[in-house]
Amino acid sequence: MLYTMQNKLFAAIRTSGSGELALIEQLRRRLARQSTAGLPLGIGDDCALLRLRRGEEIAITTDLSIDGRHFRLAWHLPESIGHRALARGLSDLAAMGARPVAAFLSLGLPKALTRAGRRQPSWFERFFDGFLALAHANRTPLAGGDLSESPIAMADIVLAGAVPRGRALLRSGARPGDRIFVSGALGGSAAGLSRLRRLADAAKTSTALPKNSEALAPHLYPLPRIAQGLWLQRRGIATAAIDLSDGLSTDLAHVCHESRVAAEVDPESIPIHGAASLAQALHGGEDYELLFTAPAPARIPSSIAGVPITCIGRITRRRAGKPVITLLTQEGREPITPRGWQHFA
Amino acid sequence: MLYTMQNKLFAAIRTSGSGELALIEQLRRRLARQSTAGLPLGIGDDCALLRLRRGEEIAITTDLSIDGRHFRLAWHLPESIGHRALARGLSDLAAMGARPVAAFLSLGLPKALTRAGRRQPSWFERFFDGFLALAHANRTPLAGGDLSESPIAMADIVLAGAVPRGRALLRSGARPGDRIFVSGALGGSAAGLSRLRRLADAAKTSTALPKNSEALAPHLYPLPRIAQGLWLQRRGIATAAIDLSDGLSTDLAHVCHESRVAAEVDPESIPIHGAASLAQALHGGEDYELLFTAPAPARIPSSIAGVPITCIGRITRRRAGKPVITLLTQEGREPITPRGWQHFA
Repeated sequence: MLYTMQNKLFAAIRTSGSGELALIEQLRRRLARQSTAGLPLGIGDDCALLRLRRGEEIAITTDLSIDGRHFRLAWHLPESIGHRALARGLSDLAAMGARPVAAFLSLGLPKALTRAGRRQPSWFERFFDGFLALAHANRTPLAGGDLSESPIAMADIVLAGAVPRGRALLRSGARPGDRIFVSGALGGSAAGLSRLRRLADAAKTSTALPKNSEALAPHLYPLPRIAQGLWLQRRGIATAAIDLSDGLSTDLAHVCHESRVAAEVDPESIPIHGAASLAQALHGGEDYELLFTAPAPARIPSSIAGVPITCIGRITRRRAGKPVITLLTQEGREPITPRGWQHFA
Repeated sequence: MLYTMQNKLFAAIRTSGSGELALIEQLRRRLARQSTAGLPLGIGDDCALLRLRRGEEIAITTDLSIDGRHFRLAWHLPESIGHRALARGLSDLAAMGARPVAAFLSLGLPKALTRAGRRQPSWFERFFDGFLALAHANRTPLAGGDLSESPIAMADIVLAGAVPRGRALLRSGARPGDRIFVSGALGGSAAGLSRLRRLADAAKTSTALPKNSEALAPHLYPLPRIAQGLWLQRRGIATAAIDLSDGLSTDLAHVCHESRVAAEVDPESIPIHGAASLAQALHGGEDYELLFTAPAPARIPSSIAGVPITCIGRITRRRAGKPVITLLTQEGREPITPRGWQHFA
């Protein structure tokens, strides 16, 4: 069947009469209870309508997650996959200092993942357990999306946020002399993934994997730093910001590139997660902490909204032929090469 | 490799130094030339920033297209797949009477589709030839997205549009006595698909398929009715509107459901595409024409922005136990059952 039919998330169900997907009806009831401030029209029409406050502009980000590349059905619990899909988008809003307004989700799923067991909820339901718990915690209504059967599982998340005009935190404002800060601890997600990989190799089935643990939590359930991003945006202190989705070495390089500067990092000062190595903190990715820069005289608190803030280095002038990021070790200066993964490389 | 890395569309390329994907660099140069009114920040940061005019609200829609379900690599030229992906989103904006502000595209592609031949552009480049031609014609900048390698080809399109507050065309405003109108001709896409299927079955390779033809054009290159949607929104004449993506029988049922009304359609008055049957006009889908309702006294022109407008029936009261849509044939009244395709049905 090649015709594209009414496949907006859940809308199809309305006209289909009885007998169709009780699980989606259940999900629609769950969505009916969500906060809809700023959302005059949600699921059920050709588009959702979003309303901003006076003087705001819209921030939009999209992130695609595909089985085998961004998660693995055999390794990750459905709740974690739902949580992580939304966390990726929310973290981008945090990095701009934007408040979440609405999320949109396009899901492609093999049919089997929508089937509930006799006493067990379906993968689909559990995915939304994880997704909606994080959405609720961040007052982010799911305003629409699309649903299609697919040979592989994939989720494309879209976040719309709002930020006062001209006040968004950008990657491009870092200046020589600025200090570099990160929130929270780094490397925990990479350490958790490494542990998950070992557990998955040892376990015969994914159901044998632990549902959660302190060591796995930073990887399975990372917390986007919305409150911290909003705090920075409202104070107007940060000159640049980015979320640490790809790893410190890669994301700091993005800031340096967009700001046309270089950076020096003191490895001793990096807040490394208890279970992680320095390499994981530098290159691991998916911590979803914030990295930001601020002028040296600015007073930055030791924590923002309950999350520790640590100075890890400073911005310097860019010099032709010199490394963009330098690690200041006891042995001297050591260039860091971003270990960012290139698609199709 | 399971880490999610910097994979925002094209942003990864900036920090990767030399030797990487000349085709994406070329695409970035193409994008640099696009109109960016209303788009203070495009590709290159964590989010894009969109700015509306005073008194506007935002319309957002997402549409997922997957190989084998919404298109077929073996049947559809890459230019058509790019065009159709964008057309689906633009058509949703047209149905709301919104003006396009920006598009976002998440692409998952097998690696082979990004490779250029010796004298031939890659599938990837040709996809964007189709995508950007339609984007340019509708003054819609590509403001961001995501790119990932994927075992199957898929494209999730997001459109953001703007509409004066409270003026969007909704599905829910049709009232008994309103007349029902459609733009253009119906069934051409289904007829084109049917023809394409026969050609594909006969041809050994997709390169042997015709690049275009009058009969295939409504299917391969449908034109979203942005100008007509804007006209209706500005005049404030339409009581309800929807785009014909799923077929007249299904989409009119959506309007009836959201408006809590029923409808009578005169099959003699349906503007059937020259190559199509009545069944294709009723149930075919993917015509991307507009269906709208207007009070009986309203004067509706015979064409809007160059596209014919035809009255095909009227809205009636909904009665329990009676069909929602009735066809008024010479033999009498015949109920129409929406033949909409249900995912996972």
